[in-house]
Amino acid sequence: MTSYHKPDEKTLQGLKDVANKLRINSIKATCASNSGHPTSCCSAAELMSVLFFNTMRYKADDPRNQCNDRFVLSKGHAAPILYAAWAEAGFVKESELLNLRKVDCDLEGHPTPKLAFVDVATGSLGQGLGAASWIQNYYQCPYFLLRLPALCCRYRVYCMMGDGECSEGSVWEAMAFASYYKLDNLVAIMDVNRLGQSEAAPLKHDMETYRKRCEAFGWNTYVVDGHDVEELCKAFWQAQQVKDKPTCIVAKTFKGKGLKNIENLDNWHGKPIPKDRVDDVLKDLQALIQVPNKTLTPKLPKDDTAPADLSVISLPSPPAYKKGEKMATRRAYGVALAKMGEASKRVVALDGDTKNSTFSETFKKAFPDRYIECFIAEQNMVGVAIGCATRDRTVAFASTFAAFFSRAYDQIRMGAISQTNVNLVGSHCGVSIGEDGPSQMALEDLAMFRAIPTCTVFYPSDAVSTERAVELSANTKGICFIRTSRPDTAVLYAPDEKFKVGLAKIVRQSDNDCVTVIGAGITLHEALSAADTLASEGKLKIRVIDPFTIKPLDAVTILASARATGGKIITVEDHYKEGGLGEAVLSAVGKEPGIVVTQLAVTGVPHSGKPQEMLDLFGISAKHIAEAVRQTVAN
Amino acid sequence: MTSYHKPDEKTLQGLKDVANKLRINSIKATCASNSGHPTSCCSAAELMSVLFFNTMRYKADDPRNQCNDRFVLSKGHAAPILYAAWAEAGFVKESELLNLRKVDCDLEGHPTPKLAFVDVATGSLGQGLGAASWIQNYYQCPYFLLRLPALCCRYRVYCMMGDGECSEGSVWEAMAFASYYKLDNLVAIMDVNRLGQSEAAPLKHDMETYRKRCEAFGWNTYVVDGHDVEELCKAFWQAQQVKDKPTCIVAKTFKGKGLKNIENLDNWHGKPIPKDRVDDVLKDLQALIQVPNKTLTPKLPKDDTAPADLSVISLPSPPAYKKGEKMATRRAYGVALAKMGEASKRVVALDGDTKNSTFSETFKKAFPDRYIECFIAEQNMVGVAIGCATRDRTVAFASTFAAFFSRAYDQIRMGAISQTNVNLVGSHCGVSIGEDGPSQMALEDLAMFRAIPTCTVFYPSDAVSTERAVELSANTKGICFIRTSRPDTAVLYAPDEKFKVGLAKIVRQSDNDCVTVIGAGITLHEALSAADTLASEGKLKIRVIDPFTIKPLDAVTILASARATGGKIITVEDHYKEGGLGEAVLSAVGKEPGIVVTQLAVTGVPHSGKPQEMLDLFGISAKHIAEAVRQTVAN
Repeated sequence: MTSYHKPDEKTLQGLKDVANKLRINSIKATCASNSGHPTSCCSAAELMSVLFFNTMRYKADDPRNQCNDRFVLSKGHAAPILYAAWAEAGFVKESELLNLRKVDCDLEGHPTPKLAFVDVATGSLGQGLGAASWIQNYYQCPYFLLRLPALCCRYRVYCMMGDGECSEGSVWEAMAFASYYKLDNLVAIMDVNRLGQSEAAPLKHDMETYRKRCEAFGWNTYVVDGHDVEELCKAFWQAQQVKDKPTCIVAKTFKGKGLKNIENLDNWHGKPIPKDRVDDVLKDLQALIQVPNKTLTPKLPKDDTAPADLSVISLPSPPAYKKGEKMATRRAYGVALAKMGEASKRVVALDGDTKNSTFSETFKKAFPDRYIECFIAEQNMVGVAIGCATRDRTVAFASTFAAFFSRAYDQIRMGAISQTNVNLVGSHCGVSIGEDGPSQMALEDLAMFRAIPTCTVFYPSDAVSTERAVELSANTKGICFIRTSRPDTAVLYAPDEKFKVGLAKIVRQSDNDCVTVIGAGITLHEALSAADTLASEGKLKIRVIDPFTIKPLDAVTILASARATGGKIITVEDHYKEGGLGEAVLSAVGKEPGIVVTQLAVTGVPHSGKPQEMLDLFGISAKHIAEAVRQTVAN
Repeated sequence: MTSYHKPDEKTLQGLKDVANKLRINSIKATCASNSGHPTSCCSAAELMSVLFFNTMRYKADDPRNQCNDRFVLSKGHAAPILYAAWAEAGFVKESELLNLRKVDCDLEGHPTPKLAFVDVATGSLGQGLGAASWIQNYYQCPYFLLRLPALCCRYRVYCMMGDGECSEGSVWEAMAFASYYKLDNLVAIMDVNRLGQSEAAPLKHDMETYRKRCEAFGWNTYVVDGHDVEELCKAFWQAQQVKDKPTCIVAKTFKGKGLKNIENLDNWHGKPIPKDRVDDVLKDLQALIQVPNKTLTPKLPKDDTAPADLSVISLPSPPAYKKGEKMATRRAYGVALAKMGEASKRVVALDGDTKNSTFSETFKKAFPDRYIECFIAEQNMVGVAIGCATRDRTVAFASTFAAFFSRAYDQIRMGAISQTNVNLVGSHCGVSIGEDGPSQMALEDLAMFRAIPTCTVFYPSDAVSTERAVELSANTKGICFIRTSRPDTAVLYAPDEKFKVGLAKIVRQSDNDCVTVIGAGITLHEALSAADTLASEGKLKIRVIDPFTIKPLDAVTILASARATGGKIITVEDHYKEGGLGEAVLSAVGKEPGIVVTQLAVTGVPHSGKPQEMLDLFGISAKHIAEAVRQTVAN
């Protein structure tokens, strides 16, 4: 173990000077925008100064370099001090700071990856640490099997949180996760400035309780004076020496530190310094600075590495299913993911203790070193997956019951702002899961994921299309969601069938179809069964469409089909009526006069029962489809 | 302090016998349904026996009695043992247990309040403790100011969790909350049976780490042998003596306890005992029972009380706003809630440290003893609010930024299954919040809440309608969501205007309107501005509709208006295109031929900027509406 060398006085003074410069720039920027959180910046000034100009190793002119130490500002409302730090480091022009929060400037109210030095968007609190828990090199983590030789530089990850956000359970999910996996290159910083938005945070300055909680969750913990640069230099150095444990720096600070008659007072959250006081405040801070020009430069990373290999990842072989064979799409997901794992070492899988239900265990069995068990903590699982996908290092697939992604909806929402390419796979959709009952049935997941602006929503209806959905997901930008079903269903497509995002399949048609029926997953099979029934009755033929992706939806095929069937469409979905397949179709045809859409969907809280009983009870089985066709034609 | 009296041997043997009877009935029920989680029941058998037949006070023939001790089975998949306990207590017929999970039986796969002995639905893990943290009498809690004299019986609350679910952050939000408020009538039980669904839980049987975590979160903690009825009797008795702290019983147990070659083994989660083994297993358990007939009866509650007063709560005075006056709907929410608080003592408010932004602080200032600060932990806030609303004891309003309800979407989803009447109020919707940027903008909340089957979605557009929305919410069954906006907007309605759920207002019309424009909140005001512009240009008149509730939507008014305007509708919303106002309208008119709907909505991740710049940039401002009208008419 190397011994600690205290920085010389000049360096220490330099760090103090930088802290006050960061304060000044945070104040100036928020005054210019007339909004923002200068007091939340000021509590973190010494922490930021020491991290950026003494502790962290990074190339200031190349913030996305794979070997840079990472920094996640989980308390995203302190964005101005992050921008000020990158200005001090030379990447951001100091004059640009005054364009904070303007429509044509990417220095937004909260950080987003539009800025090269931001990996994940923050601003919804308590989310940074989950992403930071895997914004790191697997190679760094000998305790876990994950090793990706292509990405072998060593770096450390720093995540700064506020004390207020430590009330979020997601923080404690991440705390438990990081210690379980012994992530000793991870350092969390709690900026305990005592004051929340509307009152004091629950623990106020009770530093010992913070310490106990962090230690109980398995972290090496230092309680420090967050305004003492020397103490901070030493604590961050000590953290580097620790093996087998992540380190938490619990820093006692004061909100608005250094601002006269503002420091440590209530009612200053999210308020710029008033115009009539700002000159005095700035003058006080200026007076503390001994060397105004830049004297400190960041340390460079020790390693170098090639950028990630971004070539397309293809299935090593076509789907090996025969038409008519029975196979649940959730099971086909596992097979597909294992094949993708064979195709590329960048493919990794995560699950929340449902791997034997989602079938991600098929991947785990094939590639145990690229599977991350996240236990029953879906928020953290999505956060870690987003972390895994930063800087294109991995192609991450995270799975659980589709219903339980509702637990992580805020993380998914923020993932879109983070420009993440993560893939989320939800099994056990709809009432067709049967006996387990409504708590386990995803009936709002299509609404959830459709309302994510960067999201592609796959809803494969057989094993072949599931395999292609997984392949396409791996290569599609933005968030991808794949909805899989529990029951076994027949294989519909030949192994060489071609699938594209936004391209529907017409799976049944004739020259005289009277209605277009659009189903997906289990309801596509019910629609085909209804078509058989109607055909056997001898009179009515229907066109049946498999949309494959619900977003984007193939409006061209649907419109053409609707026109060919007298403008009549029936949608049928194992999902609530709101925000799902039916409304997606309505949205696609809404500007076309003369088209009528009948929606069959689940309309109330369901019940336990046999899958087929549920489909019948909620009006989405073959017999209901056939009846809706008869009625539509009769009208 | 009273001293502990060990139960006599007969009682102890009786408790052991009951535990094994519960095991037997759990096994029989899951065999009958051929699905379910018998091994998860067996680990909890002694805990359930002691709780239901030694510790808890309740009327077995009146499970909803206000004075009963409460029991929440957070590990909802152990439902069969809960049903077996109520059979043993006499409320459920033993023969009915064999109808577990059948479509016509309310003994579902996971518990729901269709059963009188269930207060909140469980089955999505980690949610029970939040609700249990306020399923109790405020009167019991001298440390907190809440006192509702009408509901003054004393009871205790028991919440049983699994170890797997303790990975959920929501558990730790609830742990922090309950100790902060010193809820000493709350007892959490962790059934640490070591095994999760697909592998061992992260802490396995590391009981000391569980103890440290619970203690660090401020709980009085006992680590016990969860299969020793005597030890359990004593621990629960000790918990009753503790003041100022909630108690956690961390029980070391074995999954499948008592089942030969199944106990403590992998791969038995969620599997009934195989047919060829069940007879042997049952015989072993039967052999342990010394007195097969019922010998133990539950203790009765000490208190009695009147049922909750369910009369309608009306505003004490009409809204006091003048037309044209400027007032943000979020601010009007605070005024309205304070008035409702004046009207009824049952009205309580919760917030997650955003009370000075949502304006729930207006209520807090008027009624500090009925305001619950939940800090930055939205999952727990929603859980606590649902707990507050159980057994109709309170009318609870919980508020935060609408975007942050995405954090609690799973709790909200489960709230519908719980048949809760909770009211959720989300401020800061849409891009019109401006500078704070996308992380703070709710743009998917309408999609979220519309897809909740029991939910009424209010989207008031001025202060008067906001006040009426709050009044209607308080008296409407199911979940109510009220979406409020940040900017000041003009008052549109007179104080005596009548509002009803599902009734839209036509706010502008003439005899020759060419298009129906539907907006809400800020976009209704933009639509009115567009109407002025178009009218001033001298040619085009438009009909403008305020839907007031997005769900249910007033299809009658919208259809009539569309027919009167040539079938042309334009919707404009400060929300993503998917699942919001536009699709609600499409759904309402989808079966009517000849209607075309043009949707103006936010289509990509937004940015920081001034509110009006954002409305312009994302195509939902007056000028875009006017242009859409011109184009619609031209087509």
